[in-house]
Amino acid sequence: MIIYESNRNWLRDVNHLYRSYTMQKIVRSTLWVGAGMTLINFLVHGVFKLTLWRIETGTFSLLGIVLSILLVFRTNSAYDRWWEGRRQWGNLVNNCRTLAMLLHASLPESDLESRRFMAAHIANFCIALKEHLRGGVKLTELIHVTAEERDLYGTKTHLPNFIAAQIQVNVQEKVRAGELTAADLLNIKPHTQTLYDVAGACERIKKTPIPFSYNVYLKLYISAYTLILPFGLLPNFGYVGVGLIMFIFFAFIGIELMAEEIEEPFGLDCNDLPIGDITHTIKQNVYELLEVGHPEEPKPKELYQKVF
Amino acid sequence: MIIYESNRNWLRDVNHLYRSYTMQKIVRSTLWVGAGMTLINFLVHGVFKLTLWRIETGTFSLLGIVLSILLVFRTNSAYDRWWEGRRQWGNLVNNCRTLAMLLHASLPESDLESRRFMAAHIANFCIALKEHLRGGVKLTELIHVTAEERDLYGTKTHLPNFIAAQIQVNVQEKVRAGELTAADLLNIKPHTQTLYDVAGACERIKKTPIPFSYNVYLKLYISAYTLILPFGLLPNFGYVGVGLIMFIFFAFIGIELMAEEIEEPFGLDCNDLPIGDITHTIKQNVYELLEVGHPEEPKPKELYQKVF
Amino acid sequence: MIIYESNRNWLRDVNHLYRSYTMQKIVRSTLWVGAGMTLINFLVHGVFKLTLWRIETGTFSLLGIVLSILLVFRTNSAYDRWWEGRRQWGNLVNNCRTLAMLLHASLPESDLESRRFMAAHIANFCIALKEHLRGGVKLTELIHVTAEERDLYGTKTHLPNFIAAQIQVNVQEKVRAGELTAADLLNIKPHTQTLYDVAGACERIKKTPIPFSYNVYLKLYISAYTLILPFGLLPNFGYVGVGLIMFIFFAFIGIELMAEEIEEPFGLDCNDLPIGDITHTIKQNVYELLEVGHPEEPKPKELYQKVF
Amino acid sequence: MIIYESNRNWLRDVNHLYRSYTMQKIVRSTLWVGAGMTLINFLVHGVFKLTLWRIETGTFSLLGIVLSILLVFRTNSAYDRWWEGRRQWGNLVNNCRTLAMLLHASLPESDLESRRFMAAHIANFCIALKEHLRGGVKLTELIHVTAEERDLYGTKTHLPNFIAAQIQVNVQEKVRAGELTAADLLNIKPHTQTLYDVAGACERIKKTPIPFSYNVYLKLYISAYTLILPFGLLPNFGYVGVGLIMFIFFAFIGIELMAEEIEEPFGLDCNDLPIGDITHTIKQNVYELLEVGHPEEPKPKELYQKVF
Amino acid sequence: MIIYESNRNWLRDVNHLYRSYTMQKIVRSTLWVGAGMTLINFLVHGVFKLTLWRIETGTFSLLGIVLSILLVFRTNSAYDRWWEGRRQWGNLVNNCRTLAMLLHASLPESDLESRRFMAAHIANFCIALKEHLRGGVKLTELIHVTAEERDLYGTKTHLPNFIAAQIQVNVQEKVRAGELTAADLLNIKPHTQTLYDVAGACERIKKTPIPFSYNVYLKLYISAYTLILPFGLLPNFGYVGVGLIMFIFFAFIGIELMAEEIEEPFGLDCNDLPIGDITHTIKQNVYELLEVGHPEEPKPKELYQKVF
Repeated sequence: MIIYESNRNWLRDVNHLYRSYTMQKIVRSTLWVGAGMTLINFLVHGVFKLTLWRIETGTFSLLGIVLSILLVFRTNSAYDRWWEGRRQWGNLVNNCRTLAMLLHASLPESDLESRRFMAAHIANFCIALKEHLRGGVKLTELIHVTAEERDLYGTKTHLPNFIAAQIQVNVQEKVRAGELTAADLLNIKPHTQTLYDVAGACERIKKTPIPFSYNVYLKLYISAYTLILPFGLLPNFGYVGVGLIMFIFFAFIGIELMAEEIEEPFGLDCNDLPIGDITHTIKQNVYELLEVGHPEEPKPKELYQKVF
Repeated sequence: MIIYESNRNWLRDVNHLYRSYTMQKIVRSTLWVGAGMTLINFLVHGVFKLTLWRIETGTFSLLGIVLSILLVFRTNSAYDRWWEGRRQWGNLVNNCRTLAMLLHASLPESDLESRRFMAAHIANFCIALKEHLRGGVKLTELIHVTAEERDLYGTKTHLPNFIAAQIQVNVQEKVRAGELTAADLLNIKPHTQTLYDVAGACERIKKTPIPFSYNVYLKLYISAYTLILPFGLLPNFGYVGVGLIMFIFFAFIGIELMAEEIEEPFGLDCNDLPIGDITHTIKQNVYELLEVGHPEEPKPKELYQKVF
Repeated sequence: MIIYESNRNWLRDVNHLYRSYTMQKIVRSTLWVGAGMTLINFLVHGVFKLTLWRIETGTFSLLGIVLSILLVFRTNSAYDRWWEGRRQWGNLVNNCRTLAMLLHASLPESDLESRRFMAAHIANFCIALKEHLRGGVKLTELIHVTAEERDLYGTKTHLPNFIAAQIQVNVQEKVRAGELTAADLLNIKPHTQTLYDVAGACERIKKTPIPFSYNVYLKLYISAYTLILPFGLLPNFGYVGVGLIMFIFFAFIGIELMAEEIEEPFGLDCNDLPIGDITHTIKQNVYELLEVGHPEEPKPKELYQKVF
Repeated sequence: MIIYESNRNWLRDVNHLYRSYTMQKIVRSTLWVGAGMTLINFLVHGVFKLTLWRIETGTFSLLGIVLSILLVFRTNSAYDRWWEGRRQWGNLVNNCRTLAMLLHASLPESDLESRRFMAAHIANFCIALKEHLRGGVKLTELIHVTAEERDLYGTKTHLPNFIAAQIQVNVQEKVRAGELTAADLLNIKPHTQTLYDVAGACERIKKTPIPFSYNVYLKLYISAYTLILPFGLLPNFGYVGVGLIMFIFFAFIGIELMAEEIEEPFGLDCNDLPIGDITHTIKQNVYELLEVGHPEEPKPKELYQKVF
Repeated sequence: MIIYESNRNWLRDVNHLYRSYTMQKIVRSTLWVGAGMTLINFLVHGVFKLTLWRIETGTFSLLGIVLSILLVFRTNSAYDRWWEGRRQWGNLVNNCRTLAMLLHASLPESDLESRRFMAAHIANFCIALKEHLRGGVKLTELIHVTAEERDLYGTKTHLPNFIAAQIQVNVQEKVRAGELTAADLLNIKPHTQTLYDVAGACERIKKTPIPFSYNVYLKLYISAYTLILPFGLLPNFGYVGVGLIMFIFFAFIGIELMAEEIEEPFGLDCNDLPIGDITHTIKQNVYELLEVGHPEEPKPKELYQKVF
């Protein structure tokens, strides 16, 4: 994600336009449409001296209403996904902190082994979830994993689930051994549950794009709309009309492509959520709360696949 | 559901147009309207040389505003159902995983019988719910069912309810026998409850379409609107007007039909939710979490009744 | 409620138009407006040969924007009530099932008396709530009520509350007698609480219509709008203008009246919720889950006061 | 609040127009604008025979779009506050009933003193909250208060908080004395918590109007829009234009003023919530559920400060 | 935040226009645009006597629809952040009060030390959170902090988390020492959890502005729209057109800048939330509820960095 300060310097932000992959693509498509329209205008008016049928602007307004319904729907549903993804990861942050805090309050201060086990497993859950959402867990990213665990992890089809289960199993064992009480068990359980809930919600967002019909219909509609635009704007305006067509096309294609960019927010696109950074924050917080020193790994630098 | 990658290749998606049943229907209706309008235009202008009353475009804009209110309402309420259905099934996934994880942590590792009982019942609840939402439970779909159970299941009017109750009864028996503690009972109960909540929510979505008045009013309105469109567009535009009428009709009928398609999301329509696949995922996850091997059944192939 | 299948047969649904009371009323008002406008047009143009001031269409668009804001607001808030009412009753279904399931799991299988008591009281709560929302409880609708209870019930101002309290009192007595455990008490309590929550939420929806100002303002606005429409459409269009006025009036009055119909969803209007049927479903499910045979009453036929 | 039946008699409601203070104000402002515009028109066209610049209607549509964005935002956020206020008080009703029911089930039937204490304190919490939201608690409104308590209450800056704390303290004492169990404590606690949540939410709604910038911007915009309207409508329409300006002004000012009226819903405006009546209902229900007779006070008549 | 009474005095509020920093900026930009347009108009029409291409108003309406989609989206998402921030702090108020009330009910009345510890730590959590959201905790703001604690606090990267953990640790110690019961632990835990949830939610709002693409796209669009406006309005209207351009620009820039102002609601902007005042209220309430006298600090005066 591009982190930016919402700093009210109008020009500075417009200036950063080209840092966004989607923006590049929007501008490029608009230029292509402009080139095509210029050619058409040149051929029709300059070479063949034809008179195009003229469609009045009112018709475009009418068709524009339907298009705006679809674009509003598209933008809102895409943004809702993006924002829900952010809320789920915010949830994960809160949940991991609370879980660490509860364990810190219940575990004896001297039981460093349990504390380290818990800190590492909470952090690993987040790392595994991040990787899981980005197309497959790389075991080397996990921290404090023994060779034995690494082998075990390799056999699991859903690693985040397994790590969360290990936490709960460990808590249950401590309850049976009398190290934690029944009240602790009741207090801790909602937080292992939330680990599953966040994982499931992220999978849902990732795997369920907007229904296929809407996606294809919107593209079809924008294409058809752009194809009849010349009949409305070229006859009267000529080359100025080409500029207007480019502007209108820019408007519609922009909203569509930006929605596509944010609707799956867990990838490495320019506007996707910084879940790598969030994971790192959780790791730091959990280790600090459980008072077991800081994890050794350096902060991973978030990569943006398609930018720069 | 058509699973597609939101991959930003504009043409590829438009290309897949004909894979959607609803899209076929939209295009077909539009072609019929086009044919009718061509005939009318031919008769009026070509044969009888009549002059149609002309209605100015402003009137259509005015009527178009009301139509757009209704279409926004229709699209949003249909999409909300679809998305709530998806969320409920996502919920079911999380809930079954958490339930399996809690049972895994509380049941002794050696008690394979209880683990198998739980895994089979959680999986069967999901299968039964899927079938229940698709018009009646086929008992042969369930897994690890004894002949005795099969007979018992046949007598129940609401099978998912009964299977969920069996899980709770079994947990209670274990608590009475001292195999599980009161804290376990308190921890596990919200998850049997969620099974009922998801089942009830899906039934609600399935059984409560948009109020009848809205449905019929919208259809009436679109029909009437299309009937007066020729008076606005044929007098001046002739055959070009036929094209515009088709485009406008395509826009309105498309939004209406796509909303109809997704408003009941549990069927086998092209854009319905892949609840068969989700059921399969739950089954796999539950068996893995309870560490009782994998269920024997092969992955059921989701069918699309009306596509291809 | 008119149950209909969202079956995609366009004409069949338009055909059912007259089964809806609201639709009849909308069509009737539209015809009256049409008759009035025809008379005015006849008098003005045919008899007195007057020239009306002409207001251009742009003005109507401007006024139409404000009207559309109000109608969107009206439709959404009315539908939200209707849908929240449906969700509350869906909630009640889930809750009664879960309550029955928990009692089934905790009560000894042989304690048929307690099971019958619980089943009858859960069912009676729903029946009493239904009647309470429809204007006063008829004690004869309740099932398995002794003469003594009937007398007691007659003295209560809020019967659903009292029946729900009886369930909780009975559970508490069983806990004191050692038949249920403290964990059972903690598990069961949220479900008696939900009975109160659903009852309160339905009362809230029923008793709080849209603020009076909005209601009267919207009616005033539509009336005024219709009164100036002739100045926009009759001068140029004559009798065709009468048709257009009827269409525009039909659009606005339709949205307003449909919103009025669904905003109080617990009555017996054509589009109101089928809470009689839902009550019946709960009764059946609860008796099946508690395994105490089926209740004797036949399924009550839901009546529609104003249809047919 | 004006309680009205949503009875579908169109004229009756329009007839009640003048019972609403806001409606009076809207109509009055509109008449003033009309008077001013008539004067201007008379001076410009009748006396000085000037020709005004003419602004075409399209410009007003463009500006109208922005205005409609703001008015939709205004209406929705105001209505959300009103409806959230209603939901919070509905919540309070449910919560007080459930609390009374739980106490009824747990307290011995003979312990009339505790029951009376609880009934009076729950009722007093609601009364104190109502007064607190309306600008300061009058101690004389509370019921069954001893002189000693009255003195104590006078020293508290946040009386509802204190009364709710007394309930919880009393419950804790009973738990320590063995009259209530730990499970009762766990069951009752969410309901004293909800008392705080409702009080806090109502304070939030009351103290946080829409951001000041939006408020002032909207007023500025409507004023400016009305000031340029004459240039659009007077040149062509003359005195008919005055009527149209009044209608348009009526539309915009109406939506703004109605939003202002409902955005702080706890006062005594005509459309504010009937929280006095709701308080009375809670009092009756709580006394009935705890079976300690009815409270002595007569039903307080809700006053409307600005109506009639 | 500017606290204002929504008092229905139209002129008074418009009068306060200049107290808002954002309003100043909007007016200033509008004046600059006006100056530029006047110059252009003077050069084009007065000096060089050129004829500009004329773009008809319909085109601007079409482009205006897209712009309005973006502005609605912008306004709603910004306001949602602002309102969610307010709800979170309202939550914090309720939560701290409930936590204090529960501790008051459970701690012995004589245990003033524990009460003071709890009151100070709850208050300090809120103060630390406020500072944390405003760019770094100043330890001098905290109350009743010993020198030793101050040193410890200085080493923590996330101070609010640490203070909340101290509360939970203290409660756990009391449970182990038998001063509080297991039921108390279960009752208190959700409230330390909520401290983490509120802190996390505020961080989420603060750190996640609207996706960068949308931000830059909207600015680009408004800039481009303003640049082509002269071609639509100057040719026919001349200097009157300059006024209209200023009005339209004022409309669009206003909505954009107001959204920017409220989207990060924890700062010291004119419309930001009064979290300093809320913190003060919590402090007072908590001390009153725990009955340990009032905290010594004077009420901090909320500063507005950019106003006056």
